[in-house]
Amino acid sequence: MGRVTERRKVLRIRDGVVSSRPDTLVAEEPLEIRLNGKPLAITMRTPGDDFALAAGFLVSEGVLATASDLLNIVYCAGATVDGSNTYNVVDVKTAPGVAIPEITLERNVYTTSSCGLCGKASLDAVRTNARWPITDNPPLRLDPDLLASLPDRLRASQRVFDRTGGLHAAALFGEDGELLDVREDVGRHNAVDKLIGRALQNGALPLSRTILLVSGRASFELAQKAVMAGIPVLAAVSAPSSLAVDLAAETGLTLVGFLRGSSMNVYAGEDRIAVPATATQG
Amino acid sequence: MGRVTERRKVLRIRDGVVSSRPDTLVAEEPLEIRLNGKPLAITMRTPGDDFALAAGFLVSEGVLATASDLLNIVYCAGATVDGSNTYNVVDVKTAPGVAIPEITLERNVYTTSSCGLCGKASLDAVRTNARWPITDNPPLRLDPDLLASLPDRLRASQRVFDRTGGLHAAALFGEDGELLDVREDVGRHNAVDKLIGRALQNGALPLSRTILLVSGRASFELAQKAVMAGIPVLAAVSAPSSLAVDLAAETGLTLVGFLRGSSMNVYAGEDRIAVPATATQG
Repeated sequence: MGRVTERRKVLRIRDGVVSSRPDTLVAEEPLEIRLNGKPLAITMRTPGDDFALAAGFLVSEGVLATASDLLNIVYCAGATVDGSNTYNVVDVKTAPGVAIPEITLERNVYTTSSCGLCGKASLDAVRTNARWPITDNPPLRLDPDLLASLPDRLRASQRVFDRTGGLHAAALFGEDGELLDVREDVGRHNAVDKLIGRALQNGALPLSRTILLVSGRASFELAQKAVMAGIPVLAAVSAPSSLAVDLAAETGLTLVGFLRGSSMNVYAGEDRIAVPATATQG
Repeated sequence: MGRVTERRKVLRIRDGVVSSRPDTLVAEEPLEIRLNGKPLAITMRTPGDDFALAAGFLVSEGVLATASDLLNIVYCAGATVDGSNTYNVVDVKTAPGVAIPEITLERNVYTTSSCGLCGKASLDAVRTNARWPITDNPPLRLDPDLLASLPDRLRASQRVFDRTGGLHAAALFGEDGELLDVREDVGRHNAVDKLIGRALQNGALPLSRTILLVSGRASFELAQKAVMAGIPVLAAVSAPSSLAVDLAAETGLTLVGFLRGSSMNVYAGEDRIAVPATATQG
């Protein structure tokens, strides 16, 4: 447990000069997530926060929505190598009465009946399963300067990245810019699941009036996770995909991309960005 | 088909100045991969090269190893929305006599009997399923300067990235540095699957004496794909994970990370890097 980094020997080549030294790498191990004893998914993740990761994954999949939906999470006792627990299998038990949606063993399950798989079906599946409509009362209005300040603060709080250069990060901020939580993982989707799972465990869902910042691109999967947790604003340092933008537009999620320096692109939910009307061009 | 990019309206904010304009985004759509009619996996991918993606995915999973293992690949005719084909479901038919390993519907299937899931089991699964041992005869010896030149050449050939900033890329180079192929996708693993699947279709597996370059980090999954295709060298612009390094060391894969400018770190398979012995320090 807590094997967030590991040491390996590395041969360094710098301008033709070769040296051998130990290097710190981000740890990657498989995690099997079981739901009420039944294997559901395997993800390659950085060990640590495994219960939060499993809980957050199940929020994204529409199984859990509140802390009371969750009975408990345990490491599977039989998960041993040479007699020692590998801590790589967790079982999530839901509270009595929690309805389990039909989840196949596939990684993503946005398939409709017959053969009709398309982006539209993926959007519909998220909208149908979302338990927390994205609404703000009073309306949320974020200053662009506040948004612009967030990436530097995420970077400053990335402890493991500094040592390994190998992690994705996700951070949750309050509407006043307060850093609420930050998680790192080899997988960006895992970092977000850890954030959301921790919030579920703390009874903080839906994550109204918060901003989710991710270190890389904004894919459909990340937009889905924001929507399922009731997060109104997703900001990414890099580009969004077409389907992420479509999902944001359909669900009322504000989607900001290319958040760099004092610049940003707003792809959906512009009403939450406090733009001076007089400054508008084009 | 060929919907590699899509246009969406975006609100741009630059130093307080706001403008509205169309923006080009990388397209993302779900693809369901069926094996002999049975649903196997769904991946979110950039449309295009779908048959290569499906074939490469099945090389990684140990189903296909040569062009003759593949009977054909078709878009599922029933995959329609409003009567038009969505081109988001493909069915891969294997040639008679091809043994299908036991593949569950999980995204990754490195689980052993009972509860013994761990990094070691993941390594063993790849080693057991690999059809192409990584060997070079005569031995492969790469000049560090040649490796250092590859990232710039990958970037120069990324056509879609220039327009969207949103794609991962993977490129295959010959031992003399010749660019053999390059693929882009919203998912890094998809870009690699497309490269490998195209090579399978062309009868080019195993990809002996080649270098696989990826635009981001080197995860276990990417190292697995290199090993399954018989690629001897995996180079990444960013950091590798611990399990990627372990897999490389166990299978004889050369793993290079942080390939930037004239610098690089060699994590495994150092014998394929032509290092001047007199330059060694530390």
